Amino acid sequence: MRTCSNFGINTMDSYKIPHVGIVGAGFGGLQAATTLKNKPCTVTVIDKTNHHLFQPLLYQVATAALSPADIAAPVRTILRNAKNITVEMDEVTSIDTSRNVVFRKQEGELTYDYLILSPGTRHSYFGNNDWEEFAPGLKSLNDALIIRRKILKAYEKAKHSNGNIAKHTTFVVVGGGPTGVEIAGALAEIGRQTMLQDFPELTASDIRVVLVEAGKSILSAFPESLSKHAQQHLLDLGVEVQTNSKVQNITQDSVTINGTVIETENVIWAAGNTASDLLKHVPTTLDSAGRVVVQQNCSVKEAPNVFVIGDAAHFPDTTYTALPGVAQVAMQQGRFVAKTILSNNPNAKFVYNDKGNMATIGRAKAVAYLFGKVQLWGFAAWAIWALIHVVSLIKFRNRVSVMSEWLWYYVTYQPGARLIIEEQ
Amino acid sequence: MRTCSNFGINTMDSYKIPHVGIVGAGFGGLQAATTLKNKPCTVTVIDKTNHHLFQPLLYQVATAALSPADIAAPVRTILRNAKNITVEMDEVTSIDTSRNVVFRKQEGELTYDYLILSPGTRHSYFGNNDWEEFAPGLKSLNDALIIRRKILKAYEKAKHSNGNIAKHTTFVVVGGGPTGVEIAGALAEIGRQTMLQDFPELTASDIRVVLVEAGKSILSAFPESLSKHAQQHLLDLGVEVQTNSKVQNITQDSVTINGTVIETENVIWAAGNTASDLLKHVPTTLDSAGRVVVQQNCSVKEAPNVFVIGDAAHFPDTTYTALPGVAQVAMQQGRFVAKTILSNNPNAKFVYNDKGNMATIGRAKAVAYLFGKVQLWGFAAWAIWALIHVVSLIKFRNRVSVMSEWLWYYVTYQPGARLIIEEQ
Repeated sequence: MRTCSNFGINTMDSYKIPHVGIVGAGFGGLQAATTLKNKPCTVTVIDKTNHHLFQPLLYQVATAALSPADIAAPVRTILRNAKNITVEMDEVTSIDTSRNVVFRKQEGELTYDYLILSPGTRHSYFGNNDWEEFAPGLKSLNDALIIRRKILKAYEKAKHSNGNIAKHTTFVVVGGGPTGVEIAGALAEIGRQTMLQDFPELTASDIRVVLVEAGKSILSAFPESLSKHAQQHLLDLGVEVQTNSKVQNITQDSVTINGTVIETENVIWAAGNTASDLLKHVPTTLDSAGRVVVQQNCSVKEAPNVFVIGDAAHFPDTTYTALPGVAQVAMQQGRFVAKTILSNNPNAKFVYNDKGNMATIGRAKAVAYLFGKVQLWGFAAWAIWALIHVVSLIKFRNRVSVMSEWLWYYVTYQPGARLIIEEQ
Repeated sequence: MRTCSNFGINTMDSYKIPHVGIVGAGFGGLQAATTLKNKPCTVTVIDKTNHHLFQPLLYQVATAALSPADIAAPVRTILRNAKNITVEMDEVTSIDTSRNVVFRKQEGELTYDYLILSPGTRHSYFGNNDWEEFAPGLKSLNDALIIRRKILKAYEKAKHSNGNIAKHTTFVVVGGGPTGVEIAGALAEIGRQTMLQDFPELTASDIRVVLVEAGKSILSAFPESLSKHAQQHLLDLGVEVQTNSKVQNITQDSVTINGTVIETENVIWAAGNTASDLLKHVPTTLDSAGRVVVQQNCSVKEAPNVFVIGDAAHFPDTTYTALPGVAQVAMQQGRFVAKTILSNNPNAKFVYNDKGNMATIGRAKAVAYLFGKVQLWGFAAWAIWALIHVVSLIKFRNRVSVMSEWLWYYVTYQPGARLIIEEQ
């Protein structure tokens, strides 16, 4: 019988196979679960939602190109054939590592032998939480639908604005990382290519998209030359890129950047992340973004049978200060941690295999930095981006409909989900 | 220059082409608009939402088979090439037929020469409006998403119910018309074929679907033999059909039918319709369902330049008391009214060309009554149903994705949109 003794666990009954709790069914948690599937352990996967979300394409739901079901699938269905895994739609509200217990909102206590924490992050407004109301961020399907409604209603409002059009047709995206760049590119393209046809009252010069970045360049995780290509792609689409620019205030109908006020009701926040509050219950060091600073095997120093992965973890790295919060890191950590548990080897060390980093700009351009050396931009980068994302979506069985959506958009410039669905 | 003189309109400047107001972009309003497209008139189409909805498939959004974007498209986009048509997302709150004016919530007064009213219906709870909270109806995309969330969450709640499963896994559909039959069939099939795999805690006997009809048979608009086939198809799927059954009360966790209380949190209302309140501003006779009793040319007796079409109209008929509220009637009336306006001929009479009536039951069965004589049921009826609906969706350009969704479901029993998206 497998035991956890190498991890110093005392509560463990050595005649029982271990029970692994996984909090969060994002890329990291789901990868850990599938690695543990039908292996000698029992697993409980707990997520607040009923679905796994393919987050790299979430901006396409926000910009009306895809529907929620195109990029999400029920966790239960994905793990249906795993006889040793239970999926719970519940919320973990607290953790007691001294007793190896998590507290669930609905079902109460759950005892674990190993715990994998992959609760993800939320947007951070750097202490200005009142901005959230006016500048929604993009993490969940609900966030994406809120932003989609906001964008589409902006054009309807412009039609009824009696001359004061600017505040409706100006879009300000805060944050020049991949999400901000992708949203800004999509907004500019949809505005000029799609909305002008639907709203003949408007002209191209009415539509203004501003991308604001506090640092000296957008896509700072990419090599400088790719950052410049991305900026050029954005300029080609008509996006104003403002670097070295700090947002000082956001109200319902304005944003102040470096002392200048832009009148707009459409601010989208893609600037900062803060890790889940749940991590505050882990008795260890958190970094300034609220992430757990983990050991070389992704475990918590003070609780070696607890692992933190994905963008909730601060994994010290020589190239980056900490490994970036991207799907690849989370998935590789999820697989690594699951194997570490199965092999009962606390001395294994996680090594990130950096396959690359990409960001799309508009309908058919992208930048890609592959294997730490290859730099691609323009259509070639986009083609690789599209291929990788379609293949990645295969497991969600959505590739056919996503491909048909994309093909349709590519040919017609008509994103397929431009629906304003009002809540009542 | 075309004038409206044959309609007795005095306000009309005879040197001006007429202005047609269309309220509601459902099947009737949209068909009227497309018939008036690029003809010698100006047209304003006003709808509360930004999209036209393919309502016959709305139950598939409610039962998680399709996404909203699969069955809806922006009205502006559909009418984009119509140079004489303006589309407004606004709400008409009142009408003054004596002044030929409608009042819009945002934009105020709009003067018309002709007015086409196609505002549709809402569910009617026969005076028990407090039931709506517990028994949502199905008219809009938002309705469908509310029902979808309710159904999917019911299974999640069942998992956490500590034995009191029945109230979560019992589904009661009120109303044995096509919508009720289609929802009940889909609920039974999804429950048995899909959810049991996702929730291994449940067994087939836990899932109960009841279809309640006050009349003596379901699908009363169909010939009796087809009604019986439909009932058999439902029984085959495990649906309990209760005819001659009256709902006496609905609470948060129960429904009382003929004196018997069924414990359930999942009641769906498909029983009654009442026409839009807007029609109360039309100075004419309304029937008991709030519909305008129209003339033979679909106009209002007291205001001959005002037409009411679709399920807002009571069009006297010898076969039916009034023509049924189906898409075919609305579309034919829309086309007829537009042509009547263009030809300036108030004496034209609308004749309904009844091509048939259909209802699907589950994944691959249906009943169809075609051209007033052909009766089909089972797979043959379903094949015709699927063909007609796919062809009808072509204009919304969604046929590829819908076909791929259906093909996928047909092969795997996995409806593709089983997402619980919580509003915050």
